[in-house]
Amino acid sequence: RAARLGKQHGTLLVVASLIDKPTNLGLCRTCEIFGASGLVLDSLHHLNDKHFQSLSVSSELWLPLFEPVELTDFLQVKKSEGYCIVGVEQTANSQSLQDFKFPEKTLLLLNEREGIPANLLQMLDVCVEIPQQGIIRSLNVHVSAALLIWEYT
Amino acid sequence: RAARLGKQHGTLLVVASLIDKPTNLGLCRTCEIFGASGLVLDSLHHLNDKHFQSLSVSSELWLPLFEPVELTDFLQVKKSEGYCIVGVEQTANSQSLQDFKFPEKTLLLLNEREGIPANLLQMLDVCVEIPQQGIIRSLNVHVSAALLIWEYT
Repeated sequence: RAARLGKQHGTLLVVASLIDKPTNLGLCRTCEIFGASGLVLDSLHHLNDKHFQSLSVSSELWLPLFEPVELTDFLQVKKSEGYCIVGVEQTANSQSLQDFKFPEKTLLLLNEREGIPANLLQMLDVCVEIPQQGIIRSLNVHVSAALLIWEYT
Repeated sequence: RAARLGKQHGTLLVVASLIDKPTNLGLCRTCEIFGASGLVLDSLHHLNDKHFQSLSVSSELWLPLFEPVELTDFLQVKKSEGYCIVGVEQTANSQSLQDFKFPEKTLLLLNEREGIPANLLQMLDVCVEIPQQGIIRSLNVHVSAALLIWEYT
């Protein structure tokens, strides 16, 4: 982790295209702090949102941002570039975050409560889940993402 | 971690008394999910706040909540009960989260941008910081807390 934190640019791409709550896009700050190589949004219009700006505290100026026209095409290109496409999802076949070893080139596909749509789900190389106890079984997506980014670095 | 996650009650007390943004009290849900033994708030009135309720998604019903009259007295009592009082703060003497071993009985004292007030700072047994790169040097407090709680479990 120390070695990775020292690197100016890692190869962790965080895809937040399926997240639509501006509150959760405070994720931009977390990505910048932990040296993700880029953040993918459904629309760069979020940058004009005052709420987004207050949460990102100008981190958006220091982090490469992307707005792909078609998310499926984007994932396909990244796959061909050698990225491991990691979904954050609780499924029967998910690997536990505490055991999972992230490949150097990782693309994290996040999602809010709806889950990952079927057409994207089939493009994943692996699903990772965060072991949870408690009655309430769903972490906030920004928190989930932060734990995965932390474990990557 | 697996062993701890299996336990119904750990002995991790999370003190959010210095946090006043209701958004960050979504932390209640994170505490419940990772099995913290309790959450300390500046006021239980937050429970009546609609924003708090929407973020905590009823986790407040499953997690012991405390509202101490005097935070200093509360910390003193916990200290005498054997808790290690851990501040989350970047100081010259802070230990890095990646190396820190949490004692079984841990009390996490969180804070928002103001930092921990001097009268509380002197009660800490240790300060822990999260190694960060990037230009923006301050994680959101809910995210910081989640990473420490994750590393504790």
